[in-house]
Amino acid sequence: MNPPRVAVVPNPLPLAVEAVQRGGGVIAPPAEADAIVWTDARGAADLAAMLSGSPARWIQLPFAGIESFFDAGAIDPNRIWTCAKGIYGPATAEHALALMLAAARRLHAHVRAGAWTGDTDPPMRSLRAATALILGTGGIGTALASFLAPLGVRILAVSRSGRSVAWAKHTGAPADLPSLAAECDWLVVAAALTPETRGMIGREVFASMRPDAWLINVARGGLVDTEALVDALKRKAIGGAALDVTDPEPLPADHPLWGLDDVIITSHTANTFRMAVPELAALVERNVRAFAAGEPLEGLVDPSLGY
Amino acid sequence: MNPPRVAVVPNPLPLAVEAVQRGGGVIAPPAEADAIVWTDARGAADLAAMLSGSPARWIQLPFAGIESFFDAGAIDPNRIWTCAKGIYGPATAEHALALMLAAARRLHAHVRAGAWTGDTDPPMRSLRAATALILGTGGIGTALASFLAPLGVRILAVSRSGRSVAWAKHTGAPADLPSLAAECDWLVVAAALTPETRGMIGREVFASMRPDAWLINVARGGLVDTEALVDALKRKAIGGAALDVTDPEPLPADHPLWGLDDVIITSHTANTFRMAVPELAALVERNVRAFAAGEPLEGLVDPSLGY
Repeated sequence: MNPPRVAVVPNPLPLAVEAVQRGGGVIAPPAEADAIVWTDARGAADLAAMLSGSPARWIQLPFAGIESFFDAGAIDPNRIWTCAKGIYGPATAEHALALMLAAARRLHAHVRAGAWTGDTDPPMRSLRAATALILGTGGIGTALASFLAPLGVRILAVSRSGRSVAWAKHTGAPADLPSLAAECDWLVVAAALTPETRGMIGREVFASMRPDAWLINVARGGLVDTEALVDALKRKAIGGAALDVTDPEPLPADHPLWGLDDVIITSHTANTFRMAVPELAALVERNVRAFAAGEPLEGLVDPSLGY
Repeated sequence: MNPPRVAVVPNPLPLAVEAVQRGGGVIAPPAEADAIVWTDARGAADLAAMLSGSPARWIQLPFAGIESFFDAGAIDPNRIWTCAKGIYGPATAEHALALMLAAARRLHAHVRAGAWTGDTDPPMRSLRAATALILGTGGIGTALASFLAPLGVRILAVSRSGRSVAWAKHTGAPADLPSLAAECDWLVVAAALTPETRGMIGREVFASMRPDAWLINVARGGLVDTEALVDALKRKAIGGAALDVTDPEPLPADHPLWGLDDVIITSHTANTFRMAVPELAALVERNVRAFAAGEPLEGLVDPSLGY
């Protein structure tokens, strides 16, 4: 077989171009390409327009959260689609760990105080012997579990199928979420946003959580019912929330979440472009090599599941 | 041998009293005690006064940092002294990890901003593939290394003896500190404060550190030359500092450290009393049992070393 012709668009990122070449591909314009490496987290409509004039059989997307491509109707099921699911798991899980530890050690309260606190028995806690419920058993959840285990955290999980994963003491299905949420000190959202998961963390889950349990979201804002979250926080029905993603996003300056004491918000920075590009380039190289050899690709998207 | 008579003073903490009894001891006043469990982090002069009228052969101190007892001349070398070194390692190491991750993910900047940041390529980083130099190879350093390993951190160490530890790629002696500091992204201080270690992190170390490297201190403020630290931060000779301990402590409201962007300060809360008491009680039980049986005690203080 001839070397695969690969378009790197809309931005011909040097690291991605070199990865295509190292993987045995040659760079080509989209109209003559066997494959397209899409290098922008957005631009679903532009990609759809480009595909209408391209013979590409395979499209590589650059991130794991690809709901905007589904929403725009860009995911043509007659082509092969891969995304970056799994490879950013460790970086995003590291951010989840940072948020959990910041909340446990009340770093947000210290930073806001800007002064030595004289409290003689402050309400800091340790993650040791705490229970974390991880929603999602993909790359983020798996990496997070490996980080939490040495800290002595007891781990529960919820997955779409409910099939047990080796790293959790117990794995439930989505229907088990309220009862498992009642057991946890930390509820970590690390699942894909799909029609099934949208708003999954809502009034019923908050009602079952302990009053000192925290919600951590490093997945997508839409998994959480924001209005129900604000209500639960205001009533102190839960301990707090640490969010890297929000709904809406960006979160407007006048949003009530900004005014609450036990809320920590980062601006969707769990896996920044700077952190991601080296991992993406390595994936592109592996996938171009596999495509050239007719072998299975990594990060296959299942159009029927939406991720 | 009769059950050892143990005084639990100055505060007869119920958990400590029960631990003495579970360990096979009986509670007695200091003037008739074979052993004293001192339940206050301070009060060295009171303890010294009490000892002058006590036959106690063994004294258990409640924390690991005991320099104030040495400074007050309370540590009588004709008695056996134990402290809580080692047992709080995981709790304190967890705080060090929280500070490292907060700095890497710039949580302090997000919390201070109190608004969504529009920066499209923010300077967050990951701990993955970073190098951490841990000063001190006791309980804190050992626990921290076990937490950092799954995150993909390369670990170097400095110890008093320079003897290699299994968890570090390389272990140096104090004289190697400047050259090892030049290699690290994170310099974590986790050593005892002794006459030898006081001010050990000073101008020479800061001069050798990379301009993006952070100092993390969860040990004692006195290990760091505060004036040199402020100077290095102001000149941006180092990336930042995350401190659970300071010199002086508490840090006065007008101290220049409070005004610097890349400084995170917590108020000596790595291992609060609330977190510590269950671990201390377990240690007291083990040591009372060993004392009754004439076996070696855990956490022996070496008066010639000062810890």
